[in-house]
Amino acid sequence: MSGMILISSRDNPHIKAALKDTSETFLLEGFRLCADALASGYAPEKLFLTAQARERYPTAPLEQAAAQVFEITQPVAQKLGDTQNPQGAFGVFLRQNGKAQDFWKPSGNYIALEKIQDPGNLGGIARTAQALGLDGLLVCGGCDVYHPKALRASMGALLRLPVTQVDNLPAALRECALPCYAAVPDRDATPVFQCDFAQGAVIVIGNEAHGLSEEALNACKHKITIPMPGSAESLNAAVAAAILMWELRH
Amino acid sequence: MSGMILISSRDNPHIKAALKDTSETFLLEGFRLCADALASGYAPEKLFLTAQARERYPTAPLEQAAAQVFEITQPVAQKLGDTQNPQGAFGVFLRQNGKAQDFWKPSGNYIALEKIQDPGNLGGIARTAQALGLDGLLVCGGCDVYHPKALRASMGALLRLPVTQVDNLPAALRECALPCYAAVPDRDATPVFQCDFAQGAVIVIGNEAHGLSEEALNACKHKITIPMPGSAESLNAAVAAAILMWELRH
Repeated sequence: MSGMILISSRDNPHIKAALKDTSETFLLEGFRLCADALASGYAPEKLFLTAQARERYPTAPLEQAAAQVFEITQPVAQKLGDTQNPQGAFGVFLRQNGKAQDFWKPSGNYIALEKIQDPGNLGGIARTAQALGLDGLLVCGGCDVYHPKALRASMGALLRLPVTQVDNLPAALRECALPCYAAVPDRDATPVFQCDFAQGAVIVIGNEAHGLSEEALNACKHKITIPMPGSAESLNAAVAAAILMWELRH
Repeated sequence: MSGMILISSRDNPHIKAALKDTSETFLLEGFRLCADALASGYAPEKLFLTAQARERYPTAPLEQAAAQVFEITQPVAQKLGDTQNPQGAFGVFLRQNGKAQDFWKPSGNYIALEKIQDPGNLGGIARTAQALGLDGLLVCGGCDVYHPKALRASMGALLRLPVTQVDNLPAALRECALPCYAAVPDRDATPVFQCDFAQGAVIVIGNEAHGLSEEALNACKHKITIPMPGSAESLNAAVAAAILMWELRH
């Protein structure tokens, strides 16, 4: 691109702005994630590329789609980057927040997360959800779905999967016409392998340490659990979610 | 303990020795993990405790079992510690390597790992294996089962579960009388939900990037896979292992 502006100062206002979280935009690092976002319909507002990145990756479609493209130096890439060896490709994209009413499909299979804190868990759950063919992911509170570590852990699944963030999980669950299953550690809840998910379902998973809120529990018709022979043992949140999603799909 | 030796130098030879990996011993950090190791039959060679840790935790059983007990200062704890805020409790324990022939139980359920590299994956798989009630974990190559990050990710399961490390995985699989199932990404392998594991089984999982070696594949009678609707998608190794172990147990 001719006449591309070169940014060589780490204090450049475009760089400072890109690093700020806003309610309208998010920053993506890495060529593959930026290309994934573009392919999933996210609009790039700004693109920051080192000369090396422009040589190494096929950045033309991203450059054409972006409202503004900047060339950056290696030190600026290091400032923008969350990883030790940044690829030198960054994009500021417009957030999307699908409306909950367009989200639900009849007989669909969904997972809903209440206040999942760890970006690795959120990303890991999204990755599994997409691999197992779920229809969407509903997120309420906790880690932002555009958190850089969550996006990386998801291998881009958070951008490809239908994802909706809501403020009021019980209201969203009551609106949808699907049966809702609260995942709980109670031994008297229904073992997940006894559930019949043929009509579709929403499986609702709570915070890593505190589980589901009373309000979310009350919005679910069923309580399900993963039976564990070891009494003192527990499963990691992403692993528990994976087993529940696997049962939902089989 | 009266007459306990105080170590206040980060260069003390006991500290340097504790930080060295040996084929006979391993270093554990944290009171809970040390207590887990003792309860699982591991013998503490040396114990390193800050005065604060001795006040905060019930360390008496560990101190009685240890061949040597040292009091350490906070800077020494920081040197020994792998975490940002060390609890001030460390133990050097004798490694155990159960013999493969004592390991297998008739109709038992096992998982075997070939060259799993990531400590978080190894620990996560052990945690899930114990929670789901597997009979043991066979490890060949890759991450050491006494790697501090693996032990932490396992929440102590690597110390509580029967674990055997072997150099020759195909030989170990041929020796055991159980049917062996190689986990592969091939679409023509048997979907895991079609397998009948009633006679017990060993599920064999390969390296995160390269999968199973030819030799390991040849030592397995069956090839199984986790069907995924999304063609370009993949599961994290710990999640794939969790789904396979869940099917093995249900």
